[in-house]
Amino acid sequence: MSHVDIVVANASELLTMVGPDGETHGARRGAALGHVGVIEDGAVAIHDGRIVATGPSRDILASFDAGTLVDAKDGVVMPGFVDTHTHLVWAGSRAWELEWKLQGRTYREITEAGGGIPYTVKETRQADPDHLAALAAERARDALHHGTTALEAKSGYGLDELSELGQLEAIRMARGRIHQRLYATYLGAHERPPEHRDDPTPYLDEMRTSTLPKVAKRGLATFCDAFVEKGVYSPDEVRPLLIEAKRLGLKVRIHADEFNDLGGAAFAVDLGAASADHLLSISDDGIEALAGSDTVATLLPLVPYAIRDPTYAPARKMVERGCIVSLATDFNPNVPCLNMGFVVQQAVYAMGLAPAEALVAATVNAGHSLDPEAGLGVLAPGHPADLVVTDQATHVHLAYAFGRNHVRAVVAGGRHIPL
Amino acid sequence: MSHVDIVVANASELLTMVGPDGETHGARRGAALGHVGVIEDGAVAIHDGRIVATGPSRDILASFDAGTLVDAKDGVVMPGFVDTHTHLVWAGSRAWELEWKLQGRTYREITEAGGGIPYTVKETRQADPDHLAALAAERARDALHHGTTALEAKSGYGLDELSELGQLEAIRMARGRIHQRLYATYLGAHERPPEHRDDPTPYLDEMRTSTLPKVAKRGLATFCDAFVEKGVYSPDEVRPLLIEAKRLGLKVRIHADEFNDLGGAAFAVDLGAASADHLLSISDDGIEALAGSDTVATLLPLVPYAIRDPTYAPARKMVERGCIVSLATDFNPNVPCLNMGFVVQQAVYAMGLAPAEALVAATVNAGHSLDPEAGLGVLAPGHPADLVVTDQATHVHLAYAFGRNHVRAVVAGGRHIPL
Repeated sequence: MSHVDIVVANASELLTMVGPDGETHGARRGAALGHVGVIEDGAVAIHDGRIVATGPSRDILASFDAGTLVDAKDGVVMPGFVDTHTHLVWAGSRAWELEWKLQGRTYREITEAGGGIPYTVKETRQADPDHLAALAAERARDALHHGTTALEAKSGYGLDELSELGQLEAIRMARGRIHQRLYATYLGAHERPPEHRDDPTPYLDEMRTSTLPKVAKRGLATFCDAFVEKGVYSPDEVRPLLIEAKRLGLKVRIHADEFNDLGGAAFAVDLGAASADHLLSISDDGIEALAGSDTVATLLPLVPYAIRDPTYAPARKMVERGCIVSLATDFNPNVPCLNMGFVVQQAVYAMGLAPAEALVAATVNAGHSLDPEAGLGVLAPGHPADLVVTDQATHVHLAYAFGRNHVRAVVAGGRHIPL
Repeated sequence: MSHVDIVVANASELLTMVGPDGETHGARRGAALGHVGVIEDGAVAIHDGRIVATGPSRDILASFDAGTLVDAKDGVVMPGFVDTHTHLVWAGSRAWELEWKLQGRTYREITEAGGGIPYTVKETRQADPDHLAALAAERARDALHHGTTALEAKSGYGLDELSELGQLEAIRMARGRIHQRLYATYLGAHERPPEHRDDPTPYLDEMRTSTLPKVAKRGLATFCDAFVEKGVYSPDEVRPLLIEAKRLGLKVRIHADEFNDLGGAAFAVDLGAASADHLLSISDDGIEALAGSDTVATLLPLVPYAIRDPTYAPARKMVERGCIVSLATDFNPNVPCLNMGFVVQQAVYAMGLAPAEALVAATVNAGHSLDPEAGLGVLAPGHPADLVVTDQATHVHLAYAFGRNHVRAVVAGGRHIPL
C-alpha cells in the first residue's frame, strides 16, 4: 500500500477525458468530442497536487492508503471546469440596466443614459487594485463552488495604462487568495476609450509601445486579447498590437465574429491565436479556418441568454467540421454568472451539443486553449489534481437535470474543499 | 418585549408582497404586478407557524425577544416560492431520451421506440405507493433547498384506477415526510391510456363514475385536472368529468393551449377553474377570457427550454391585459427541475417579465390559485410563516444574477431550516 494524500472513490462514473487511444494531452475534435473516458465505479489517487492513479474503486482502494478518503457516493467525478473567458475584475453593479433592457432600450440608449461599458470603466478606474483583487477573489470562490478549478481573467475596464495595469495587478493579488489556477489576459483593446472614441490611433500606439512592454516585463499576463467588432477595432487596427504581444512572449486570444463577421476567426488563425471567442456570426469560411488550425473555438452560450437574443453560435456545425470547440462563461456585468454547469446545460439545451461533447468542451478542450502543457481537464497520472464530485449518476444526467448546481465537493490543486 | 419563536432580521429588502393599498389577500393583476411591497432593512417576527409582525429591523428587534434569531446578512427576504404545477410522482428515469432528442428524433419516434409518457406509465404502475412517496419526498426536499415552501403534485402516470389512486396515496404519505404544504391533484385525464388509445370513452366513464368518487370520498385530492390538447382530450370529452369533480367538491385546473389552441383558456374560465396552465398557443380571445376572470394563468417557462423550442407564452401581453399571471416548474421526466428561482430567471430573460412581476407571479399569485384563503406568498401578520433568505441585495438581483441558487435559508411552516 502506498500512502497518498487523497483518494476519491465510489464514482458511479469517473470521467477521465482520456481519449479512445489513450490520449492524455491535446484537444479533442469532431466525433472524438464524444469520448469522455468513463471508468465505472471509478476512483482517483492524489498526492502532492497531482493525480497518481485512476481505476476501478476496488483496485485503487486496495493499492493506496489515503490521508483523506472522499466518498463520491455514486455520483459522477470529473475534471474541474476550465473557464477560459471571464471579465473577473470590475467595480460597480449594472443590475439596474436589466429593467431598462426589458423595457426595450437598446445598448446604445443605455450607454447614452449613463450605463454600459463606460459606466463600468468609470467605476473600475476609481477602484484601487486591492479592492478589485478582493472582488475577483470573491467571484473566483463563487466559481469554485460551481466546480471551476482553473480560470482566465481579463483586464479591459480601464482603457488607459494606469487602470489596465491596476487590473492586471489585482488579478496577480487575487491569485494568492483563491484555490484555483488563474491566468491573466491583457485586454486593453476591449473598447475604444471615452477619450479616443473617434480616433483610437493614439490609444493603440500607447498600448503597443508603452503598456504592453510593461505588461510583458512585469509578467502580468499570459495572453493579449482584442475585441474585433464593427465600431470597436478592425483586424487591421489591432494586428500590430497582437504581433508585438507575440514578439514579447504573450499568447493571443481574440473576441471574434460576435455581432458582425469581420473575418475574426480567420484573423485569429492567421495570428496563431490560442482561442477565438464568441463566434455568433462566424461564416463557413471562418469555420473552415478554425477546423484546419489549433486555435480553439470558445463558445459563450450565456451571452445570447443574457441579451435576450436567442441566436447561438453554430456549435453542432463546428463540432462536425472538426473545430476544437470549448465553452466558457464570459462573466461580465451583463453576464453575472460563473456557473460552468449552467454553461454546459446551455450548450446542450440551447445549442444542441450532446452532454459528452459539452463536458469535453468545458474541460480538456478549454484546458488546451489555456495551458496546453499543463494537462488541465484530464484525470490521468501526472495531471493536476483538479476535480469535482457531483450529485448525479451519469454524465448525461449532468446536463439533463438542468437548473441546479450538481457540485458536491471540489479538489483543487490537490486540496479537498467540501462545499 | 413579547417572546416569539423566530425573528428574521437585517433583510436588505423584505418583500412582503403586500399591495400598494395594503392588500394582503387576492391576486395581483396588470400594473399592480410590479408591487412587491419592499421594506428596507426589514425584519419578520414568527410564532406558532404564523407571521406576527413585519417592519424595520430596529423596530422588530426592539419589540420581540426571539427564540431563534436569523440574520439575513443584508440579503433579500421574501415569501417562499409556491409551485402550483408539478408531476412529482413517477418512477423510472428518462434522462437517456435527451440524446435522442438532440439527434432530432420526434416525440412520436421516441414513444414508438419505447420512451415517452408510456414508458413512465409502465414504470410508475409497477412501483408501490411507498416507493413513490419516498421519491416524492426526496424531490420535495430538493424543491425546499431551492426555496419552495408550498407545492402541488399531480397523479397522471397511472391512467388506470388502481395506479392513479396509488399515486394520490403516495402524495398523502409524502406529506408527513416533508416541511412544505403539499396539495394533490387528480390528473387521470393526463393522456389516453395505452389500453384506450383509439377510443377513450370507457376510460372517461371509469374516471367519472368510479375513480373520481373514490378520490373525493377518501379526500385524496384538492383538484381535478385534464390535459386539453389535440390527440389527447377535447373540451367536450372532459367537461362531464370536470363538472362531476366540482359537484363532488374538488376544484379544477386545466392543461390548456399548450401546443394547439383548442380554446382551453376560455374552457377553463367557463368551468371557473382555479388555473389554466401552459398557454403557449393561447389566442387573444383566450387572453381576454382569462383577464376577465379569477382563473390564474400559470406559465411554465421551463417547458420550451426543455423541449428546445423557444416559443414562450405571451407573458407580457397577459400581464398588460390584466390576467392573473403565475409561474410554476411543470417538474416531470422531461423537465427535471424544481428550482423556482430558475423559473423566475426564465420568466425575465426568456419571457421578458420585470423581476418584480416574476416574483409576484411565483409567490402571491401562485398562492391565490392554490389556496385563496391560506394567504400563501404574502408576509403579513396572520399569514403562514413560509419565507426564504437569499444571498442577493435587491429583488432585481434575484433575477439579474442568473444561473445559481440564491436561497441561503428557509422558514417553512414556522420552522427554520438552514441550508
